[in-house]
Amino acid sequence: VRVTTLAIVGVGLIGGSIGLAARRRHVAARIIGFDQDRTAIQRALERGILDEAAADLLTAVAAADVVVFCTPVDRIAAQVRTAAAACRPGTLLTDTGSTKSAIVRELQGNLPTGVDFIGSHPLAGSEKQGPQSAHADLLERCLVVVTPAETKNDNALSRVAAFWQALGASVRVMSPEDHDRALALTSHLPHLVASALAGVLPPEWAALTATGFRDMTRLASGDPALWAAIFQSNREETLAALGRLEEHLGEFRQALADSDGNALTNLLRQGKRIRDELTS
Amino acid sequence: VRVTTLAIVGVGLIGGSIGLAARRRHVAARIIGFDQDRTAIQRALERGILDEAAADLLTAVAAADVVVFCTPVDRIAAQVRTAAAACRPGTLLTDTGSTKSAIVRELQGNLPTGVDFIGSHPLAGSEKQGPQSAHADLLERCLVVVTPAETKNDNALSRVAAFWQALGASVRVMSPEDHDRALALTSHLPHLVASALAGVLPPEWAALTATGFRDMTRLASGDPALWAAIFQSNREETLAALGRLEEHLGEFRQALADSDGNALTNLLRQGKRIRDELTS
Repeated sequence: VRVTTLAIVGVGLIGGSIGLAARRRHVAARIIGFDQDRTAIQRALERGILDEAAADLLTAVAAADVVVFCTPVDRIAAQVRTAAAACRPGTLLTDTGSTKSAIVRELQGNLPTGVDFIGSHPLAGSEKQGPQSAHADLLERCLVVVTPAETKNDNALSRVAAFWQALGASVRVMSPEDHDRALALTSHLPHLVASALAGVLPPEWAALTATGFRDMTRLASGDPALWAAIFQSNREETLAALGRLEEHLGEFRQALADSDGNALTNLLRQGKRIRDELTS
Repeated sequence: VRVTTLAIVGVGLIGGSIGLAARRRHVAARIIGFDQDRTAIQRALERGILDEAAADLLTAVAAADVVVFCTPVDRIAAQVRTAAAACRPGTLLTDTGSTKSAIVRELQGNLPTGVDFIGSHPLAGSEKQGPQSAHADLLERCLVVVTPAETKNDNALSRVAAFWQALGASVRVMSPEDHDRALALTSHLPHLVASALAGVLPPEWAALTATGFRDMTRLASGDPALWAAIFQSNREETLAALGRLEEHLGEFRQALADSDGNALTNLLRQGKRIRDELTS
């Protein structure tokens, strides 16, 4: 893939890392960025993430052949609709939002002819934020789930897959619904649990936490507004995943209440077996 | 502190690390070890953790002036009682078990005159196991909670505190009951949650896990039998901590079911505020 002009809307951790990767791997001849936060734009220019800062969203996308929206999930669909009106035919739009069904549903059939949107979700991220935390290898060996609407043309899908691969990521195609169901459990639930676990720590016991508690709550440092929006845009599936965990916690509770050492050991074995198969 | 002969009973990750730290910091003139697992003993000798392997528990402790029991929590009290009969007067016994009330209760008033036991719990550890994972700096900057029975003499308490400090750790004195109540929430609950979260992952979604899920489930790789014993020996407090978490998860559930963005954001803010105050 050789992109003539790449536009990045939202130059935080993900947007900034896309810019750095695109530059290092010579994926784009020119990189334009837009962000409502002037400080973020300033930092992105200083770090060489962008060649140019656009004055507004429409200016950024009008010049681009590929646009990536790296903004909060509750704003992406509206921004894409606004931006699409200013795009040249043939422009490819994608995003990096953590939920996909709501966004894809809202955009399906609502874009000008010749302008394609394909949803994407790079499974990268961190509790850190902002372009100052961006790094060129965040996308290396990272999986990007690409979630075309059913009606999507194959050409746009190939272009978006090639774009992510050119940045060093691998690509998996899923329906937006399958993506949201899986990610509710593999990403949204862990975040919710990290926050809940941190939330029950009485301040006087903070000194009695070690690596375990800290690893288990690190995600809780993420941005509350961003995550509230993610949970709400994937409400049903997050509730279902939470229900599954609550039920399983209930099995631990029962085994413990019954002082049933075998049941407890078996539950712990099940967790270990599944965890040991994940790398790192 | 200068220990003439240090005996380490159980030379796994913790026992091995105590040996390495004692050697590096010249805390003990001689280090004897005992472990039922001959492979562990062999590895500990190879790594220079021990000067000598004892043929049995009684031989190990008869020669020592300080003995540390680094064995599973459900075996410590019985081992200490057996060992104490072979100890010379003035011998100081301690342990590294993750729960303290049951052990201290069982030993209180049941040891020969002149032989003191003071419970200890180094807040260090890892999902890794065995002397091959031991390292000399595991105890550096680590907090060791020391939990004397009410009747304990101050001299034994001072000796055990000085021992841990000589290994590079800092020491906090708590009652066994306060220790168990706090650690149920800061250590036992996170382990249980990590295991439960790993346990609900369908295998087909393993590829869709990223750093978040992996950090949140790393503890699940711990030894199931060891952890089942820890949960059972701190049953009431672990159940109470689990109840607290379940209740708080219920608040998240309610906010999400109500699509109450403010409530959700406030819950996430609470977790973030508490987590941000913990270092690293």
